[in-house]
Amino acid sequence: MANAPLDFSLLLKAGLPTRAYVADEVIFREGDKAEALFVVQSGSVEIHAGHRVVAILGPGEFFGEMSLVDPAPRSGTAIAVTDVTLVPVSEKQFLKIVSETPSFALDLLRLFVRRLRARDGYY
Amino acid sequence: MANAPLDFSLLLKAGLPTRAYVADEVIFREGDKAEALFVVQSGSVEIHAGHRVVAILGPGEFFGEMSLVDPAPRSGTAIAVTDVTLVPVSEKQFLKIVSETPSFALDLLRLFVRRLRARDGYY
Repeated sequence: MANAPLDFSLLLKAGLPTRAYVADEVIFREGDKAEALFVVQSGSVEIHAGHRVVAILGPGEFFGEMSLVDPAPRSGTAIAVTDVTLVPVSEKQFLKIVSETPSFALDLLRLFVRRLRARDGYY
Repeated sequence: MANAPLDFSLLLKAGLPTRAYVADEVIFREGDKAEALFVVQSGSVEIHAGHRVVAILGPGEFFGEMSLVDPAPRSGTAIAVTDVTLVPVSEKQFLKIVSETPSFALDLLRLFVRRLRARDGYY
C-alpha cells in the first residue's frame, strides 16, 4: 500500500527567523525543557538517545515535535553534523499553525501513526 | 510530570447514530478495510493482534482511529466482550471534527505522542 505523501513545507514557508549552528554544536540535550520544534533549512542533524543515533535529518525535515505536542523534557540530544540553519517553531506558533491549517494537523497525525506502525504494527 | 488530561468527549456528543453488538460479536477483523473509528458508549471491547489481547476498551474510549487517520487495513481484530453500544465515526465525520476543532486534533496528537513514548521513550 502506498503511503500518501505528507506535506510539512508550510513550516518553512511561514517566514519565521532562522538560527545557525556550527558543526558539532549541541542544539538541545536530553533532559532540556522543550521550547520549540526545529525545521532543518540546510545541513544535517543527528538525534542521539543514550548511545544510539536514532535519526539523521536533512533539509525540509523537522525534529523536537514530540516534546512540543505533549510537554516533556527532551528525551534525546540533537547535534549539528554539519553547519546547519534551522527554523525554530515555538509552541505558540505551532498551536497557531495546527489551529489554522487542519491539513497540517492531519499530516502530523499521519506521521505519528506511521511511526507507531513502524514500531509494532498494531492497528 | 503529570500528563494533561485528554478530552475526546465531543466524539460522543456529536449526536451520531449508535450501533449495537452482542457479546462475542466481531466488530472488525485484521485485514478489513477501515471505514470508521468506534467510540464505546457502553460495554467492553477487546482488540486482538495475532494471539495477543493488546487493548481492552470501555465507555468513552475509542479504537480503530489509526487506520482512519492514515488509511490502511485493520491490523487488529475488535471483539465485543459484553453487549456493546458503539458510535461509529466515519472518515468524513472525523475530518470534519479535526478541521473544526483544533483542540481535538491536538489531544489526538498528544495521545499518539504518549503511545510512542510508552513504546520506546524516544523524544
